[in-house]
Amino acid sequence: MKINHNYQKLPGSYLFSTIAKKVADYSREHKEARIIRLGIGDVTLPIAPSIVKALHEAVDEMGDAAAFHGYAPDLGYAFLREAIAKTDYQRLGCSISADEIFISDGAKCDCGNIQELFSNEARIAVCDPVYPVYVDSNVMAGRTGEYDADKGTWSRVIYLPCTKENGFVPDLPKEVPDLIYLCNPNNPTGTTLTRKQLQVWVDYANEHDAVLLYDAAYEAYIRDEEVPHSIFELPGARACAIEFRSFSKNAGFTGVRLGFTVIPKDLIREGVSLHTMWARRHGTKYNGAPYIQQKAGLAVYGEEGQKEIQEQIQYYMRNTRTIYEGLKEAGYAVFGGVNSPYVWLHTGEMSSWAFFDELLDKAHVVGTPGSGFGPEGEHYFRLTGFGSYEDTVQAVERIKKTLALR
Amino acid sequence: MKINHNYQKLPGSYLFSTIAKKVADYSREHKEARIIRLGIGDVTLPIAPSIVKALHEAVDEMGDAAAFHGYAPDLGYAFLREAIAKTDYQRLGCSISADEIFISDGAKCDCGNIQELFSNEARIAVCDPVYPVYVDSNVMAGRTGEYDADKGTWSRVIYLPCTKENGFVPDLPKEVPDLIYLCNPNNPTGTTLTRKQLQVWVDYANEHDAVLLYDAAYEAYIRDEEVPHSIFELPGARACAIEFRSFSKNAGFTGVRLGFTVIPKDLIREGVSLHTMWARRHGTKYNGAPYIQQKAGLAVYGEEGQKEIQEQIQYYMRNTRTIYEGLKEAGYAVFGGVNSPYVWLHTGEMSSWAFFDELLDKAHVVGTPGSGFGPEGEHYFRLTGFGSYEDTVQAVERIKKTLALR
Repeated sequence: MKINHNYQKLPGSYLFSTIAKKVADYSREHKEARIIRLGIGDVTLPIAPSIVKALHEAVDEMGDAAAFHGYAPDLGYAFLREAIAKTDYQRLGCSISADEIFISDGAKCDCGNIQELFSNEARIAVCDPVYPVYVDSNVMAGRTGEYDADKGTWSRVIYLPCTKENGFVPDLPKEVPDLIYLCNPNNPTGTTLTRKQLQVWVDYANEHDAVLLYDAAYEAYIRDEEVPHSIFELPGARACAIEFRSFSKNAGFTGVRLGFTVIPKDLIREGVSLHTMWARRHGTKYNGAPYIQQKAGLAVYGEEGQKEIQEQIQYYMRNTRTIYEGLKEAGYAVFGGVNSPYVWLHTGEMSSWAFFDELLDKAHVVGTPGSGFGPEGEHYFRLTGFGSYEDTVQAVERIKKTLALR
Repeated sequence: MKINHNYQKLPGSYLFSTIAKKVADYSREHKEARIIRLGIGDVTLPIAPSIVKALHEAVDEMGDAAAFHGYAPDLGYAFLREAIAKTDYQRLGCSISADEIFISDGAKCDCGNIQELFSNEARIAVCDPVYPVYVDSNVMAGRTGEYDADKGTWSRVIYLPCTKENGFVPDLPKEVPDLIYLCNPNNPTGTTLTRKQLQVWVDYANEHDAVLLYDAAYEAYIRDEEVPHSIFELPGARACAIEFRSFSKNAGFTGVRLGFTVIPKDLIREGVSLHTMWARRHGTKYNGAPYIQQKAGLAVYGEEGQKEIQEQIQYYMRNTRTIYEGLKEAGYAVFGGVNSPYVWLHTGEMSSWAFFDELLDKAHVVGTPGSGFGPEGEHYFRLTGFGSYEDTVQAVERIKKTLALR
């Protein structure tokens, strides 16, 4: 009997589990501390009224013999796939059809599972720093080689540094990867690639037969006209890209769970359609997203829904600006925060985790250590605009007092 | 760029996708046919009132700033894990604790994903016939060797024939497997292993360091006192078994989506805890089951919920008896149907798919060809008790007329 030893290679536990444990331990020992959580990217505003209404209606249908829905279609209900195709793609001029959209219970599962479609020999490239699921899911599959604990790097992963020195725009790699994960707007740096900067990667992928795994979970926060909302706005993307999208950050579905993945039918490798492969995976290992959630997703695309979620996004963006401007004023080097709910700050000489501990202990504010997102995240720190406005203002005041002035 | 070529090895599409397509094509060409679907194991009764009430309450919480729930704990809410531990395990005398229960969006995902914890060299054993997800998910991972299209078998899979000749009780295999999938009550045969018959497998697994992957999705239908509701009723199971459970068939959650997996902390292989590995997988590739669904799951364990779901189960069991007795009367050899919502009938000289086509064409009844569940399922056919009572009675009448008397 042999287990999958790749799991043993993972250093420590999943980043956000580690943070949750540290905060729980601290809370237990400091019961008086009113902790403000700007760490994990979890939303705080309740689900918007028109979406709540849709949820109730769907629940009523599930309780009514004439309207009950059993197993959903594996790939999602047509009503939702069509609304997405129309609103998120065709309206932007992207030629994505409803049957190229796969509904799921969230982008994290899809980002984690997509690597299954590729050979175990495939080389992956990731921005450094980036959302840890891309690397960790490949570690579990045995694709990343050996871990260098000193450097915090994997021998077979191609890292694309994104730092203040290069303006958070990665250079093309020296070695050619098979799979290139791009997160735009990037988590955790909150920075973006413009249409022109992204075109370089689309052209590179097409030239080298690579596949772009494009995570657009934060697209709703984009304000800059130069930054694309979908990779399929770019010529050539249909032949090389898969896009992941989420309802978590635009409509507050972190606890509702809904997302989707777009795989164009033109995306062929070794003569095989990746669209067909993913459909097969959905059919075999997934049983469809819940009807209730898919109806809620449809409400997001309604007239009311669109208006309500824009208000929520504005609210979080005001928080983000508050953090960005407050910390800048206090003398921190801050990045991101304009087309993203994330502010990325430089911790100076302090390590990311030392900054985490100090922030928790002195300011009772939880953020996320940059090093948890990759070695180039060391000496950086992520704060999110997903708290309440009042908490955000107070957190910034506390940080200013306890850290900037010491 | 290399893809995962194991996907190419899968013969045809997923069984139920193939059936859905055949039925859709037939419907299009025969618009007058009133088709009765007793094929896929989908429920038809609406969600019970106390569960609908819990869903509405949870939706209201999600729309209320003070009660809103964002990301759920990766492994599930304590309220649900505790209700399960108490009601499904401790009440039966099984020493399973709440933190050994992992909440998910359904047993299909868990059954499909569990193989990731094991080496690619692991040898699997499956009952033949059985639910196709066990083999297919291992094919995708490259664990099953080559497919023999004539025999319908994989070179590295150990098959455990379950036929009328051995009373659907598999013999211990000649080669020792690492992973043994057991489904009890079995899907598709509807037959069961008693406590005594199952103990043989627990002892065998412990003796040979194998792991039992025990699918108990249909446990709610067990009436025979000799048949265990959980593998953890058996001495020694904590050291060798993982159990999969579903809310789909006991509470009608096929479209709601909720399930759980039990991994005891005593289950150690190569010095590593499989409980820890699965927790890591949940943390990295999953984002928790929705709050709304978990509250609905809790309602299933309420006093009202338990009463209501028992009524639904009785309803489906009456259907199952109707099929079983009707077909027996018509001269068919029928199996299962007593501790299970599935009736397994022998098609005589006809192939499973020929019987499927004839049943669809002559009786407008959809069933599932036994050969789709494994080579030993050839010449068998599955019908389910999940239709409405009226449809079930009519389906049996039609089958009697069109097939038995020809």
